[in-house]
Amino acid sequence: MEHKENADRLIVNCLPLTEAERERFREAAAGVPQEFVGVPEQRGSMTWTAVVPRELRARASAVIGNFPAGDAPQYPRLEWVQTWSAGVDKYTAEGALPDGVMVTSASGAYGQSVSEHLFALMWALMRHLPQYRDQQSRGEWRDLGRALSPVGATVLVIGAGDIGSHFARLASGVGAHVIGVRRHAGQSAPGFAAMHGLDELDALLPAADVVVSIVPSTPQTHHLINAERLALMKPGAILLNAGRGDAIDPDALLEALRSGRLGGAGIDVTEPEPLPADHPLWREERCLITPHVAGGMHLEATEGRVIEIALENVANYVAGRPLRNRRR
Amino acid sequence: MEHKENADRLIVNCLPLTEAERERFREAAAGVPQEFVGVPEQRGSMTWTAVVPRELRARASAVIGNFPAGDAPQYPRLEWVQTWSAGVDKYTAEGALPDGVMVTSASGAYGQSVSEHLFALMWALMRHLPQYRDQQSRGEWRDLGRALSPVGATVLVIGAGDIGSHFARLASGVGAHVIGVRRHAGQSAPGFAAMHGLDELDALLPAADVVVSIVPSTPQTHHLINAERLALMKPGAILLNAGRGDAIDPDALLEALRSGRLGGAGIDVTEPEPLPADHPLWREERCLITPHVAGGMHLEATEGRVIEIALENVANYVAGRPLRNRRR
Repeated sequence: MEHKENADRLIVNCLPLTEAERERFREAAAGVPQEFVGVPEQRGSMTWTAVVPRELRARASAVIGNFPAGDAPQYPRLEWVQTWSAGVDKYTAEGALPDGVMVTSASGAYGQSVSEHLFALMWALMRHLPQYRDQQSRGEWRDLGRALSPVGATVLVIGAGDIGSHFARLASGVGAHVIGVRRHAGQSAPGFAAMHGLDELDALLPAADVVVSIVPSTPQTHHLINAERLALMKPGAILLNAGRGDAIDPDALLEALRSGRLGGAGIDVTEPEPLPADHPLWREERCLITPHVAGGMHLEATEGRVIEIALENVANYVAGRPLRNRRR
Repeated sequence: MEHKENADRLIVNCLPLTEAERERFREAAAGVPQEFVGVPEQRGSMTWTAVVPRELRARASAVIGNFPAGDAPQYPRLEWVQTWSAGVDKYTAEGALPDGVMVTSASGAYGQSVSEHLFALMWALMRHLPQYRDQQSRGEWRDLGRALSPVGATVLVIGAGDIGSHFARLASGVGAHVIGVRRHAGQSAPGFAAMHGLDELDALLPAADVVVSIVPSTPQTHHLINAERLALMKPGAILLNAGRGDAIDPDALLEALRSGRLGGAGIDVTEPEPLPADHPLWREERCLITPHVAGGMHLEATEGRVIEIALENVANYVAGRPLRNRRR
């Protein structure tokens, strides 16, 4: 694909911006036309929706926002998509966009929110807060015995990108020994005492007090945590998941909770998702379930980070510089 | 009181010790007779009970363990009590023990456990985990909106001793700005960005996103957090209590939760305690209640710390050195 001259470009900006923020985007675009179609009222809602008017689809050379990937054929002039999500699977999937269209993500904007949610789940399970909440609903004052601490605990983080690294820093900061597992063991990351390849997972599971899954949904990660791997885990260990629901085999998880092997599970993503009201996992007392709320716009700070990434890339785009967070 | 010669001393040790630990105490006592009456099977239980045989009460010059303070008249030769609790009110109360009897606490052993429990309560409330648990019990998958983060939050800790300082380090480690309030503002403590006197409390409350009470029960701290002070708090702020239940006026707390002024409350101690099954506080959804389980022996590490403090003081006692953690 030929890259257009700036005069032929049009940025369609779907971010829900304030007037002051729009002004910053105008400055960043340095004269390249930009249409603001975002709805400011979406600020503060947990998910953002991009609605691009029909006539702009034909003219847009760049879109900032997660427009429906199925609408791509209506964007004949497209050369760049900046998502406000960290994941870009829908735009990088085979055939989703014509060759040459660049896709950049908002990776880096969600690490704080997702890792803090995982951290909250870990602490809650260590101090039996879900079970104390159940007792509270019955007006019951009863000591549930020994609690756990991250001090000196081994925490195994599967998936060591932005979120995993952020979580590793939180956990190591409170005294845990944090080990990472990623596809390419060679790449280290902040917060980790050691980094291993995914092929070493089975050897690492028996030593972990806490296992955290933050992997994206790919054929390789489907049911990565299965019955065999749950059986390798230390009795009483805690399992957390804020990646994708299908990283854990739900039947195997149910069995590991029922048998008492797992000390607790904290899951923000499920298979299927949403979890149906009659699913047996809801009723496992050592399983704490939250409805996919770790990321999204659940922290106010995330909004600002998404906007900063988009601003930086608008400036890069109009100047012909390489884009940050490029995924294709 | 005349201090005895070592030959006239007898240490009655009520700690639930292993044989190896008893050997360490024998070495520390350097020939001073020591009777071990602790029940090793108490290890792992959440509270320890001291049972001193009648005949030893008459001979004991020192007791390690929380024997019933009312039994003190049965200990005519007593010169030292080492508690395994952090609080020693029962032994320092007017008339509880004869003049000259020294009392030392296990202060320092509980900071990790209590502060980590408070930290868990804070994180759980910030991410709405109690409410998500309630939804879980109904099989309900529903997003509850914006969460909070300690990053950049102002955390006000009332009571800046061992536990307060430990909590301050945890909170500042995850990005909070931590302010302390104590009787004597002059004394600084690790983890705090600033330290103020109790007389400045009202001026500090409006700026705090999280207020943590870790004060002992004294006439000065009774209902320290009352309706007036709750009204000074920032709308949506979080209140935590792991000190003594009567530091918070329960009627005022109930009203602040019902009116929606408080974002959440996490309380491990209550007034009255235990909280009766029909108390309305149990049913406040933004109030997370745990049954006085922050401290005690809820963390395994606490047992070891209590034993180390007692060991150090046995060595001090027989050598005539000043005792650590002396409270009278």
